[in-house]
Amino acid sequence: MTGPSASAGPLARLSLNTATTKAWTLQEALDGAARGGLGAVGLWRDRVHEVGVDKAARLVEAAGLRVSSLCRGGFLTAADDAGIAAALADNRAAIVEAATLGTRELVLVVGGLPASSAPGGPALPYPAAGAAAPDPDPTRDVVAARARVADRIADLVPYAAEHDVRLVLEPLHPVLAADRAVISTLGQALDLAAPFPAQPVGVVVDTSHVWWDPDLERQIARAGAEGRLAAFQVSDWTLPLAADALLSRGHVGDGHIDFATITRWVAATGYAGDIEVEIFHQGIWDTPGDQTVATLAERYLRHVLPHLG
Amino acid sequence: MTGPSASAGPLARLSLNTATTKAWTLQEALDGAARGGLGAVGLWRDRVHEVGVDKAARLVEAAGLRVSSLCRGGFLTAADDAGIAAALADNRAAIVEAATLGTRELVLVVGGLPASSAPGGPALPYPAAGAAAPDPDPTRDVVAARARVADRIADLVPYAAEHDVRLVLEPLHPVLAADRAVISTLGQALDLAAPFPAQPVGVVVDTSHVWWDPDLERQIARAGAEGRLAAFQVSDWTLPLAADALLSRGHVGDGHIDFATITRWVAATGYAGDIEVEIFHQGIWDTPGDQTVATLAERYLRHVLPHLG
Repeated sequence: MTGPSASAGPLARLSLNTATTKAWTLQEALDGAARGGLGAVGLWRDRVHEVGVDKAARLVEAAGLRVSSLCRGGFLTAADDAGIAAALADNRAAIVEAATLGTRELVLVVGGLPASSAPGGPALPYPAAGAAAPDPDPTRDVVAARARVADRIADLVPYAAEHDVRLVLEPLHPVLAADRAVISTLGQALDLAAPFPAQPVGVVVDTSHVWWDPDLERQIARAGAEGRLAAFQVSDWTLPLAADALLSRGHVGDGHIDFATITRWVAATGYAGDIEVEIFHQGIWDTPGDQTVATLAERYLRHVLPHLG
Repeated sequence: MTGPSASAGPLARLSLNTATTKAWTLQEALDGAARGGLGAVGLWRDRVHEVGVDKAARLVEAAGLRVSSLCRGGFLTAADDAGIAAALADNRAAIVEAATLGTRELVLVVGGLPASSAPGGPALPYPAAGAAAPDPDPTRDVVAARARVADRIADLVPYAAEHDVRLVLEPLHPVLAADRAVISTLGQALDLAAPFPAQPVGVVVDTSHVWWDPDLERQIARAGAEGRLAAFQVSDWTLPLAADALLSRGHVGDGHIDFATITRWVAATGYAGDIEVEIFHQGIWDTPGDQTVATLAERYLRHVLPHLG
């Protein structure tokens, strides 16, 4: 699905995730990415839904861009029947959307503890006072929440395979473990993927989520060897933290991550896919989109491309 | 070193870390812990230095309390000769202080990336523009920083062994990996400890730092099997995050951690040491110390003691 954009140039593998240029509509993001010489876009479903998925697919094709991934499915940790049914229905819809948009990669953020779906959510109840050795509180039982994620992946795999879409498990930084994702390491994501073929279940490496992991080199190599490395997202880890930890990212080069090393690890697997820039950051959202695209292109050329081999 | 306090009561294994009652002097903390019926205190070196280590040891003994640990040594990631020498000198002093205070457990916070010792520290320089495939920037090279930690531990082990003090490696939450500790998981701490006997090198399990780890049960069991489980610290993971992530903790029961499960994992190793409460939290620091001690005792009785077996 390559087209008239500058996708044969040095930015051919660079992808603009629409979350990075939050103020742009889908059409604006497509135009901005093509104007910047990028080869692809990563799409969030809200942007797609604004125009409808069929029209979105046509707009992407007209812009001559690939869709590197669709963000996001997931939120699979509900423990009640209604919550489970709703999660499965939403993820099946996302699978169809991904297929329609021409991407195999549906990124899944798997969800946090069941009673705490958002920071600052309701206070958790205490176990009853005086009860000796009570069972673990289900709202705090991260082991059980992970088991439910495994069950939901098993539920979704046949539907994903049927649509030739890959469920791409995303380990999120442990700072988000309580409220957004009980998958915190790449190794854990690969363990969850292990029961299934690589065609319908993969993993994504997002530098800002996994840079700190002492096992990262080995697990990236494992992801490559198992054929599961579905996406590579780059953004930096910046300090001080934003009030919402999810927004504590910056442009590549603005923080503490060693992109030379991590990029080499990814390249060593033979990864030939796109490199997607997904940054949640208020300051970047307040910046004109073309300037953001120019900055992420410049950072990519300096800090990532030289290490892709 | 048991004494006249209520250390035979239900709170015999509960320890007040002086960082929890930050406004108290050493003497006030000792009096407060004894008054509350606790069996031990965890001491920070600043509180010890205020009166001098010999006097501090006498005050602790007079209060009839154990010292469950001394906090903290560490900050071992410097790359320059002067920084390395300063770190070794400071840690040797801490080893002597621990021995003098009658505790074997010297907790080490190993330090973050070398150029970023504090949140909001100086901006890191960019690699030179235009240079193809430059080497990793040393200020961002977390792999090299971890190797220096291993080297410094090797430097310190003989001195620790000679003083019958244990270097207790503390994995810190990955949110603190850039600025405070490049040890982020219990498994990594045990891997770093592995070349050395268990007598001079152990690990600490601090719930607020490791609760999210999908490998936690296995690594706690491993720490027990290897004889390295030197300390168990409890505090909760609360949301929303504080501006300084180090302060995003709360009393046991106020957050998202499943203390029933983690306490059972620790108890299953045969751990017979103290359970130390170390909470950095502005609201708790603003609370009268006796009230804080009463709260942590009540939470210990409800959420931890029933699972100690």
